[in-house]
Amino acid sequence: MIQQYHIRLSAYKRGYHLITREVLHAIPDLPQTGLLNVFIQHTSAGLTINENADPSVRVDFESFFNKIVPENEPFLTHTMEGSDDMPAHIKASLVGSSVTIPITNGRLNLGTWQGIYLCEFRNHASGRKLLISVYS
Amino acid sequence: MIQQYHIRLSAYKRGYHLITREVLHAIPDLPQTGLLNVFIQHTSAGLTINENADPSVRVDFESFFNKIVPENEPFLTHTMEGSDDMPAHIKASLVGSSVTIPITNGRLNLGTWQGIYLCEFRNHASGRKLLISVYS
Amino acid sequence: MIQQYHIRLSAYKRGYHLITREVLHAIPDLPQTGLLNVFIQHTSAGLTINENADPSVRVDFESFFNKIVPENEPFLTHTMEGSDDMPAHIKASLVGSSVTIPITNGRLNLGTWQGIYLCEFRNHASGRKLLISVYS
Repeated sequence: MIQQYHIRLSAYKRGYHLITREVLHAIPDLPQTGLLNVFIQHTSAGLTINENADPSVRVDFESFFNKIVPENEPFLTHTMEGSDDMPAHIKASLVGSSVTIPITNGRLNLGTWQGIYLCEFRNHASGRKLLISVYS
Repeated sequence: MIQQYHIRLSAYKRGYHLITREVLHAIPDLPQTGLLNVFIQHTSAGLTINENADPSVRVDFESFFNKIVPENEPFLTHTMEGSDDMPAHIKASLVGSSVTIPITNGRLNLGTWQGIYLCEFRNHASGRKLLISVYS
Repeated sequence: MIQQYHIRLSAYKRGYHLITREVLHAIPDLPQTGLLNVFIQHTSAGLTINENADPSVRVDFESFFNKIVPENEPFLTHTMEGSDDMPAHIKASLVGSSVTIPITNGRLNLGTWQGIYLCEFRNHASGRKLLISVYS
C-alpha cells in the first residue's frame, strides 16, 4: 500500500538544509514497518542524507561541491540561465533526486547522526516541490 | 504488488541520453498510485534524472564528468579494458545504478523539466539491459 | 509486504569492499518477485553497486575518490574529528546511503558483473549497521 503526500518547501537560500522535520510533518502517521521515498521534482536541486548535528558540515558541503563543480568553466555551452545553472544540474545528479529510508516500529529508522538534506544549488530559487511516498 | 519488465536499449554512443519514452513504452499500464524503479544491470553505465529540454545540458554533462573523472590518471591500476573503462566505473557510482520515481493518477510524476537519462560512459558499448519494477 | 533485517557488518578498513554475500546471508529467503533496499545508518560510509570481479577496480575507487575529495582543503571548517572526517561525509553523499535491487525468480537480479560495495571512508571505523528491506 502506497500513500503519497505533496509538499512545497519554503524557499531556501543556496546551500544545504536539514528538512527531516518538514518531511515528517507532512505525513499524518507512519506505518509500523515500511519505506519512505522522498522525491524532488526539480533538476537544479537535490536530496541527500548526511550529518544532522554540526552545521559546519553543511557549510563545507557548499565549499566542496563548488570546488568539484566550479562555475564558469570555459567548455560550458548551457549558460543562458546564469553561471550557477549548469553546475546546479551536475550537482543534482551527483547527490540524486530521491532518498529512500526504512520505517521501523512506526518511526523513520535513520542512524543517530542522519538527517535529510535539501541541496539547493541555485542562487535564487523559489520553494521546491517534494513528493513523499510511504509504502507498507 | 510488483510488476517487472526487462528491456534492452539499443546501443547508444558515449554520452547522456533521454530514455523516458523508452522506459514508459515498456510498461503496458501504470497503476493509479505507485512507484517506478528503473535499474541498470551494468557497472560502466548509469541512470539519473535531469533536464529534459535543452540538449546542451547533456553535452555539458559529458564535459563536466570527463573533467571530474579524467582518463589516464597515472595512479590507475585497472587499465586492461581501455582508458575509458575505470573512469566509467567511477562515474557509474557517482550517478547511481537506479532511479525511483513516484506514480500519481496513473502517470509518472516527474517535474516539468525532468527526464530519465541513460549515462553511457563507454566508448563502444552495446545495448544496455534495464529492469523496470512498478510497485503499487 | 515488507520484511526488514538489521545487520552489523564486521569492521572493514578504509576502502571499498564487496558485501553482496553478507547481505544475502542476512535474508532467510527471497520472494519470487520483489525489490531489495539496503540502507546504511551512517554518514561517513556509503553503499554503491559496482564491479564484482577484479579487485583492482576497488583499489582505483579509493584513489579516484581521494583525488576528487581531498583531505586538508584549506577552506574546511569541520575538522575536529580528523582530516578524513569531512571528506568522508562528502563521499557518502556522492555514492549515496542506499541501493535498490530487483528480485526476480527468487534471486537478486544483479547484472553479471555487479556486486554491492560497502564504501568505508573513515580510517578507523567500527562495524557499520545496515537495514535490509525486502518488499514483495
